[in-house]
Amino acid sequence: MRGAEALLRTLVAGRVDVCFTNPGTSEMQFVAALDQVPGMRAVLTLFEGVATGAADGYARVAGRPAATLLHLGPGLANGVANLHNARRAGVPLVNIVGEHAVAHLPYDAPLASDIAGLAGPVSGWLRTTAHVGAIAGDTAAAIAAARQAPGQIATLITPANVTWEECAGPAPAPALAPPPRAADEAVEAAAAALRSGGGTMLLLGGWALQGAALDLAGRVAARSGCRLAGATFFPRQERGAGRAAPERVPYGVADALRFMAGVRRLVLVGARPPVAFFAYPGAPSLLAPADAEIITLARPEEDPADALARLADLIGATAPAPLAPAERPAPPSGRLSPATMARAVAALIPEGAIVVDEAVTGGFPAWQASAGAPPHDWLPITGGSIGIGLPLATGAAIAAPERRVLCLQADGSAAYTIQALWTQAREGLNVTTVLYNNRAYRILELEYRATGSGARPGPQAAQLMRLDRPAIDWAGVARGLGVPARRAETAEELAAAVGAALREPGPQLIEAIIDEE
Amino acid sequence: MRGAEALLRTLVAGRVDVCFTNPGTSEMQFVAALDQVPGMRAVLTLFEGVATGAADGYARVAGRPAATLLHLGPGLANGVANLHNARRAGVPLVNIVGEHAVAHLPYDAPLASDIAGLAGPVSGWLRTTAHVGAIAGDTAAAIAAARQAPGQIATLITPANVTWEECAGPAPAPALAPPPRAADEAVEAAAAALRSGGGTMLLLGGWALQGAALDLAGRVAARSGCRLAGATFFPRQERGAGRAAPERVPYGVADALRFMAGVRRLVLVGARPPVAFFAYPGAPSLLAPADAEIITLARPEEDPADALARLADLIGATAPAPLAPAERPAPPSGRLSPATMARAVAALIPEGAIVVDEAVTGGFPAWQASAGAPPHDWLPITGGSIGIGLPLATGAAIAAPERRVLCLQADGSAAYTIQALWTQAREGLNVTTVLYNNRAYRILELEYRATGSGARPGPQAAQLMRLDRPAIDWAGVARGLGVPARRAETAEELAAAVGAALREPGPQLIEAIIDEE
Repeated sequence: MRGAEALLRTLVAGRVDVCFTNPGTSEMQFVAALDQVPGMRAVLTLFEGVATGAADGYARVAGRPAATLLHLGPGLANGVANLHNARRAGVPLVNIVGEHAVAHLPYDAPLASDIAGLAGPVSGWLRTTAHVGAIAGDTAAAIAAARQAPGQIATLITPANVTWEECAGPAPAPALAPPPRAADEAVEAAAAALRSGGGTMLLLGGWALQGAALDLAGRVAARSGCRLAGATFFPRQERGAGRAAPERVPYGVADALRFMAGVRRLVLVGARPPVAFFAYPGAPSLLAPADAEIITLARPEEDPADALARLADLIGATAPAPLAPAERPAPPSGRLSPATMARAVAALIPEGAIVVDEAVTGGFPAWQASAGAPPHDWLPITGGSIGIGLPLATGAAIAAPERRVLCLQADGSAAYTIQALWTQAREGLNVTTVLYNNRAYRILELEYRATGSGARPGPQAAQLMRLDRPAIDWAGVARGLGVPARRAETAEELAAAVGAALREPGPQLIEAIIDEE
Repeated sequence: MRGAEALLRTLVAGRVDVCFTNPGTSEMQFVAALDQVPGMRAVLTLFEGVATGAADGYARVAGRPAATLLHLGPGLANGVANLHNARRAGVPLVNIVGEHAVAHLPYDAPLASDIAGLAGPVSGWLRTTAHVGAIAGDTAAAIAAARQAPGQIATLITPANVTWEECAGPAPAPALAPPPRAADEAVEAAAAALRSGGGTMLLLGGWALQGAALDLAGRVAARSGCRLAGATFFPRQERGAGRAAPERVPYGVADALRFMAGVRRLVLVGARPPVAFFAYPGAPSLLAPADAEIITLARPEEDPADALARLADLIGATAPAPLAPAERPAPPSGRLSPATMARAVAALIPEGAIVVDEAVTGGFPAWQASAGAPPHDWLPITGGSIGIGLPLATGAAIAAPERRVLCLQADGSAAYTIQALWTQAREGLNVTTVLYNNRAYRILELEYRATGSGARPGPQAAQLMRLDRPAIDWAGVARGLGVPARRAETAEELAAAVGAALREPGPQLIEAIIDEE
């Protein structure tokens, strides 16, 4: 059996059975082996940033890793930005990168580069397979590493000769270690904080915003009277009617400082201490009050549900948590603004939907408006590397074909990985994309004010934040890539178009022309 | 004066006066300074791979570096694939990457990453500015490093606080060292090789395929009777009627081995020994005969024209070189194939055109057919990292607004950086793109045969090489991005469309539907 076949059979044995790829010559043995090994779904993308972002979305929904298959250093590099997001989300991902045959490396061929050097900054685990006898074991080790809590990027670099040489066969599925449990002292410290009276906040992050952990956190907050909050960004949150509803730490520094004011004890569950996304002259980096005590109940790699269950026991939080009531706004009318778009989205989210949010300045209003929508999952950008929305939606739809994916996508970010639409068309995915077209990098116009260079950008600066010369016809681009698309210029048109798209199979894009004046 | 303004003034003083960018919050001070500093042209791109590829194209034509301005690690990562191409081409490039403020780094904010780690594999020079007092000097050092022969990528990482703090002012233009001269022994060894009789080949690469170096190489070959060849890939070649016309080393291993058969002495001028792009089971990596003597006349960083002038003197090569005759095919008719497309291109290349070649399997026939076209420059992909064509054409057109750019672009590669079309529209660039739409990664179908897995891919492998499900409407995508486009299904239609586009101002795209059966 060739090394490539052993690699593939080991992946399938380890339940890594979807591979997002754009392969090249050095990966041809892997491609050829796809016809020998049943059980692997290979999904072609037109660009590696789509592949890595889709693998992220797949894992956030499926709860287990997909593989990527990338072509040498440049193919990896194209995927790094979305690997950065996945790394920040604590998402499991088996990242396979082809390399030249070992004997070819001394010749420094044009496509040769330092692949391990490029992979290091985004990889929690990194290995180059040294010889064909190691390929099966390395693949199993990569799966185990990817699934190490909370989830990490395991990069396996496979020289071409290792894929074409003969080996003994695949490895069995690796044993997976359960996530470590929080220390008893941590649970007791959290309980003490909750008993200390006012000024305590329970802050959930990572994988604590779903399932048993979220429910238990709601009970703990109800019993203790503490504030319950979720991190600004997280891999996935279960929310909507009938679920616990933590507040969300705002994005902006001034808003976040106001939000955290009065917090004297901050209990972290899977979250890291809240910090500013960017530094600004004179502004603090840490968003919690400087004198607040920070207590870690569960680190990101520890089991949040277990820690919260023990905490709930300790403080006697047996009563059900208060849950979000079912309430959604009526569909809006009139001009399209972030506010009316938020209402349209909130009015239409189907039960069980997966909402992907890379609407940037448009995303927070949609979040606010949809607190009482039918139960759904929310998947935001996590590492701030734009171009994640369309790929994330693609992977999420492959993980859950029975659910609807509603992708809230800003225009500037959409331009980064617009190629994802083609994969959505190719695979017939049930993704409805709402393209927030404000013809600007609106967030930069806001961020510019913080430079101290005057409230309004000069002409040179302003032109770098505008996407209106020429205006992009997003519906036309989408149709060119195979996705049916239409354009909405009023809230009524938007609601009608989104409603119709959500009832039809396959992907659609609705370009919403936003009037921000 | 703020650090950002000093940086900008130092760039302009050093004749780095075009900047390709997609900035973010950490680069806002640089953006703000654009309105204080005259003389810098900031060109917005929708994706960083466009910015780096355009900077490459600019430098190949202008002969001096452009700057990039990239947003933190992810922005840099998006530009790495085309930086890889630029590195392989020996192209000068000042690569500026924003970083978080130093005081913010310990908080490990979501967008923080190991920027220097990502930059290392593609940078010949790399520095992080330590404090605002160093920013002007570091910028001048980056310009000097970028321009160190043959040209390299100089990456300057600028923490945000360094751009907003006050400093003394800009630095003057750095002194530029001339390229080193080849050793006398190297010139004598080359002369001896040329006098040794048959079996000698003079192989030009790097910057030796233009200007005085190319002309002198033609004279040397004529005088000595040696074969004159150019590397498969190079930053820029001046060619066409009235110019010396070296043969070109073929891409395929079998073709290249045949081409090199009988070579007993290989004299390198700016070229590296020819090696296979990829390794294959049982195939050699070195394409020169194993017993051929390899003599280096001028290393890539040495002055090729100087070395060839001294060699010409030594062997008495005073007579003019034989030059390519003016001859171009009649415009073709009938179905569109790589062969008829090549004839259409050759029939229409305008004098002084810049031809950008990322047509992959379609590029070599176009090269062959256009040997006698009016004088023009040829800019191919250099490092094998696809997605360079449209960005390269963008930068070339900005460097030479008075010339026509003809971009031969394969479909699979076009999908990587299609966003470049928007920048072409925004800047009104005279770029005519011929989109070779064969609805496949045709080169992979050829490469697959080398896997030894059977001549024809199985169904799983085959679907990863086809772009026909759904077929992409490239003309529609181009129009959506603001570039007028039309579609050609016959050779007559193609010739008419390209001819018309070349007479009109601004960018156009002609989608050529190729029938390869």
